[in-house]
Amino acid sequence: MATILVLNPNSSTSVTASMDKALEPLRQSNGPDIACATLAEGPAGIETQAHVDSVAMPVADYFRSHKADAYVIGCFSDPGIHVARESVDAPVLGIAESAYLTALGLGYRFGVVAILRASVQRHMRAIRQLGLEGRLAADRPLDLGVADMANADRTISRIIEVGTVLRDQDRADVLILGCAGMGIYRGEIESRLGVPVVDPTQAAVMRAIGFLSLGYRRAA
Amino acid sequence: MATILVLNPNSSTSVTASMDKALEPLRQSNGPDIACATLAEGPAGIETQAHVDSVAMPVADYFRSHKADAYVIGCFSDPGIHVARESVDAPVLGIAESAYLTALGLGYRFGVVAILRASVQRHMRAIRQLGLEGRLAADRPLDLGVADMANADRTISRIIEVGTVLRDQDRADVLILGCAGMGIYRGEIESRLGVPVVDPTQAAVMRAIGFLSLGYRRAA
Amino acid sequence: MATILVLNPNSSTSVTASMDKALEPLRQSNGPDIACATLAEGPAGIETQAHVDSVAMPVADYFRSHKADAYVIGCFSDPGIHVARESVDAPVLGIAESAYLTALGLGYRFGVVAILRASVQRHMRAIRQLGLEGRLAADRPLDLGVADMANADRTISRIIEVGTVLRDQDRADVLILGCAGMGIYRGEIESRLGVPVVDPTQAAVMRAIGFLSLGYRRAA
Amino acid sequence: MATILVLNPNSSTSVTASMDKALEPLRQSNGPDIACATLAEGPAGIETQAHVDSVAMPVADYFRSHKADAYVIGCFSDPGIHVARESVDAPVLGIAESAYLTALGLGYRFGVVAILRASVQRHMRAIRQLGLEGRLAADRPLDLGVADMANADRTISRIIEVGTVLRDQDRADVLILGCAGMGIYRGEIESRLGVPVVDPTQAAVMRAIGFLSLGYRRAA
Amino acid sequence: MATILVLNPNSSTSVTASMDKALEPLRQSNGPDIACATLAEGPAGIETQAHVDSVAMPVADYFRSHKADAYVIGCFSDPGIHVARESVDAPVLGIAESAYLTALGLGYRFGVVAILRASVQRHMRAIRQLGLEGRLAADRPLDLGVADMANADRTISRIIEVGTVLRDQDRADVLILGCAGMGIYRGEIESRLGVPVVDPTQAAVMRAIGFLSLGYRRAA
Amino acid sequence: MATILVLNPNSSTSVTASMDKALEPLRQSNGPDIACATLAEGPAGIETQAHVDSVAMPVADYFRSHKADAYVIGCFSDPGIHVARESVDAPVLGIAESAYLTALGLGYRFGVVAILRASVQRHMRAIRQLGLEGRLAADRPLDLGVADMANADRTISRIIEVGTVLRDQDRADVLILGCAGMGIYRGEIESRLGVPVVDPTQAAVMRAIGFLSLGYRRAA
Repeated sequence: MATILVLNPNSSTSVTASMDKALEPLRQSNGPDIACATLAEGPAGIETQAHVDSVAMPVADYFRSHKADAYVIGCFSDPGIHVARESVDAPVLGIAESAYLTALGLGYRFGVVAILRASVQRHMRAIRQLGLEGRLAADRPLDLGVADMANADRTISRIIEVGTVLRDQDRADVLILGCAGMGIYRGEIESRLGVPVVDPTQAAVMRAIGFLSLGYRRAA
Repeated sequence: MATILVLNPNSSTSVTASMDKALEPLRQSNGPDIACATLAEGPAGIETQAHVDSVAMPVADYFRSHKADAYVIGCFSDPGIHVARESVDAPVLGIAESAYLTALGLGYRFGVVAILRASVQRHMRAIRQLGLEGRLAADRPLDLGVADMANADRTISRIIEVGTVLRDQDRADVLILGCAGMGIYRGEIESRLGVPVVDPTQAAVMRAIGFLSLGYRRAA
Repeated sequence: MATILVLNPNSSTSVTASMDKALEPLRQSNGPDIACATLAEGPAGIETQAHVDSVAMPVADYFRSHKADAYVIGCFSDPGIHVARESVDAPVLGIAESAYLTALGLGYRFGVVAILRASVQRHMRAIRQLGLEGRLAADRPLDLGVADMANADRTISRIIEVGTVLRDQDRADVLILGCAGMGIYRGEIESRLGVPVVDPTQAAVMRAIGFLSLGYRRAA
Repeated sequence: MATILVLNPNSSTSVTASMDKALEPLRQSNGPDIACATLAEGPAGIETQAHVDSVAMPVADYFRSHKADAYVIGCFSDPGIHVARESVDAPVLGIAESAYLTALGLGYRFGVVAILRASVQRHMRAIRQLGLEGRLAADRPLDLGVADMANADRTISRIIEVGTVLRDQDRADVLILGCAGMGIYRGEIESRLGVPVVDPTQAAVMRAIGFLSLGYRRAA
Repeated sequence: MATILVLNPNSSTSVTASMDKALEPLRQSNGPDIACATLAEGPAGIETQAHVDSVAMPVADYFRSHKADAYVIGCFSDPGIHVARESVDAPVLGIAESAYLTALGLGYRFGVVAILRASVQRHMRAIRQLGLEGRLAADRPLDLGVADMANADRTISRIIEVGTVLRDQDRADVLILGCAGMGIYRGEIESRLGVPVVDPTQAAVMRAIGFLSLGYRRAA
Repeated sequence: MATILVLNPNSSTSVTASMDKALEPLRQSNGPDIACATLAEGPAGIETQAHVDSVAMPVADYFRSHKADAYVIGCFSDPGIHVARESVDAPVLGIAESAYLTALGLGYRFGVVAILRASVQRHMRAIRQLGLEGRLAADRPLDLGVADMANADRTISRIIEVGTVLRDQDRADVLILGCAGMGIYRGEIESRLGVPVVDPTQAAVMRAIGFLSLGYRRAA
């Protein structure tokens, strides 16, 4: 049986557990095994560029030492994506990249809900790299601290606030949750906002399953 | 069990059969049923804009009268895609659109192998609609007549010729077969050209499976 | 004498009559005959994609059976434009396409006044097809029902409201009326908003006259 | 009767005469008067940026002192177009700008035939200003000296050579003659190359007639 | 010792003096001489397109008759930049162009503070010429009359108002002062707005110094 | 006296020495001190993505522990640029980014000479991030092995070959050397190809000097 390895590059096992739960709908009895792992040496959360860059090599190393048929980097900064692709002979998918590509098929203009203001420029670099800025409605931060994020109600309610601005003012017709581990709230957010919502981890694993079915050996 | 209905809008059952065979790797024992159908009233092949536009309403009508959980329009002109989306309460995926979105994840610059010179402008309109022209390397026609297409060796050899130009001169690093029913040759073409090749019907069904797993009810 | 045939693809003869009246300034004693016709089999109004796609072949058929020197499709969705071009050996101009090209010469950023919210994505597809999204300020709907449209004062006053937002907030310096049959109000709207306004039917016929004078046999 | 004043900003009356002749098809018995004039103080030909900039103010001055209902600047560098627009209360059209806008309606990708290599960058600046670079196939110079240009056969044969490269290698499907006074050869070039050809002076006057018919008072 | 000649193409010596003062930080004991001059024949201020075009040739003439190792055109409309480049065998830098290129290295999205509403389109033409519109946040006018500009407090306070909108609403993270002679206020504006501010004259002279150090003989 | 620290992130001191020599023209008696350093822990050359990512944190660490007024990352992959910017309170300039911005002022279309084919996609990502792909002519690899690079004549002659294709076929009018340590050959390459050539290390230090003169504290 084929295996998809989803690595959470931060060391918070609660985030890994939440991602794992959000992937449940993608598990099929005869489908690939979807395993979620935590990068023990990662920071508690990936918020700064130093966090991103410090896990790039460890992500690639982890993949090299854990054999799988497809790999997913479970952080919206896609840390180490290019070195990981160079390191293993299997598709490596980033969750941000996967979210952008998936959103293209769900709406005309995608909006991104960022955690922090400082992440917006990092997202813009990724979106421009992919040549997709013509489809971006806007990228707006939640400006939530870690303490607030632990409070699910507060987080969802803030996502609804920011998502409403993205939908009504920026005219986004599909939203991307710019973080890992929120897929479990996707249903509620979709039903309250009335637009499709992309959980990036789900999007990446969905793509990984497709890659395995069709025999693609490398992503780019 | 969920059902994906793939409709070949031309009346050639041999094309439908070839598409059906190319979808074999996407069938899983517990996955959705993938059924291929032929639009009996369609033309023998879809080559002209009149062919495209004459099947738009019939495609939508066919979908409306054949209940499925996701629909795929099995023609690289995506005929009737917008009216079909308006007509049924389930995702409708075009194979051209799916090929473009899939190619974005397999390379930096995609090349398209068109059947006829006259199709190139139609493809360009679709690529521009999606805002993806910045990722297009080139779109080059095979200029093959129907008689030639029946000859598999001749067809493959011509695809290799055109694909070589796309790869070497236009610097494409992923190729799209701009036609339905050639997925069965994908492996040979990939191994001879050394770049990933997208069969659009496979790409669309792969996306449909993902939509069903994640509960997306509409494509756009 | 050369003839320009303007076909209203909906069956409302009052719309045809209004278009006809708005074209009066383009009629010259020695110029081409400008005839407006109604597609009897069309829907009462073209609001949905089903309306658009259902008239594509009838538009082409009508043109094929009514000889003219240039053809204009009198609906802002340009239904059947590509098949019509394939069907007759004379220029076929869409009124939306003509409005976009004309607006490029009247201002830097064009704003579009759409009838319905649902039309905006259809417009966006057309604007992207033409590669002109860099010149678009915004496309905003009137959200008027058919009953409201019958009321000229109400319609004009709503166009002024939306046009003011396009001009002041979106910084459009030229406006396009995204509908047929409103050319008769152009003067009033222009004088109240202080920016040039494009009636798409006028724009298309103006272009058709030019094509005939200069001997161009095909539009693209 | 309305008047369109076409000013050749170089002092070569033979160029003015040739432009005048090429405009013959646009003259209608009841249509506007189309008068061609020569800027006596202009250089013999406009080849350098100094030529372009030295006639900007004289063009505007000429227009200010010669009342007309629409003005056309008959040089492919559109010298003085912005100051002229500021100077008179009537539409001022440049022939290059008009050629680009007209070509958008005749093909998907336009090719430009420049006289001199040094003009190509000037054209690129204009095309980028208009936001139309996505529609440009290529701009290639004839590299002809003045003496060669006097020889019609030699000029046409060189245009055919360059036009063939633009059509076959750069995939242009419409060509623009990047010079004034060649409209008289348009028919021959079109029939030999099999693609529509835009004479910029014709394009500008065609647009001017439309502006007058529809009452637009300013171009932009 | 090398010389950089900065020409103020308007005749206001107070503007020249202000520019001269703002360039003080760029003067090094062993660096190039930076001389500011006034075009005596220029208008009192460059506000209209007629002002711009009327000084194009005089700027080039002035440069040709005043030998320097690099030239800077000290007006945000970059009047005569192309003809000046053709006229002298040394780099000619425009201050607007220099401001745009410099801003690209200081932020992701640049905002422009224009003096007058009428200048905005002129700026847009320049930004599009350079292919940089994807990096523009917005260009907003101060709408200040000459009298107001003489009042430094009033001017700064209005720049702060407009700059705040550019930063907060248009999401600019670097601002350009769209005028010459305001460099002396840069420090105050930067500290009050908290984003880097580009004085175009400083930017141009900074680039000129680099060109001289590295031996580049021409700008483009 | 201000200090600019240029860090070669590979461990080859010969490359550092070559960079140091190429920076000689930027050293002024009263200007900032320009010091070149070698990252002892870096790989012998930076060729793979693993090389790039493995030095990101060390570059930032090195800067944090070596106080300077401006920092330059002396490798055409700009490794660690974003984390370094987050780490120190002074401008951090990448040499690739600086080369692109500098080339914009020297020509219309820039060509890049890459060392290896595998670097081209990395360059494309950077160019797209900056929104500058509209100005790129092409990026072509030398495909030289390390052994060949030691041979200056062989290297220059290969650069001339590739540069000729970029200039004549891709129509680049300015070239960028996509590597550090070749600035010493710039003069010869420029005189043989007749177009300006950008040495990225020189470009970055030139910009750093400007930042220091004008008091900019951060690059972006």
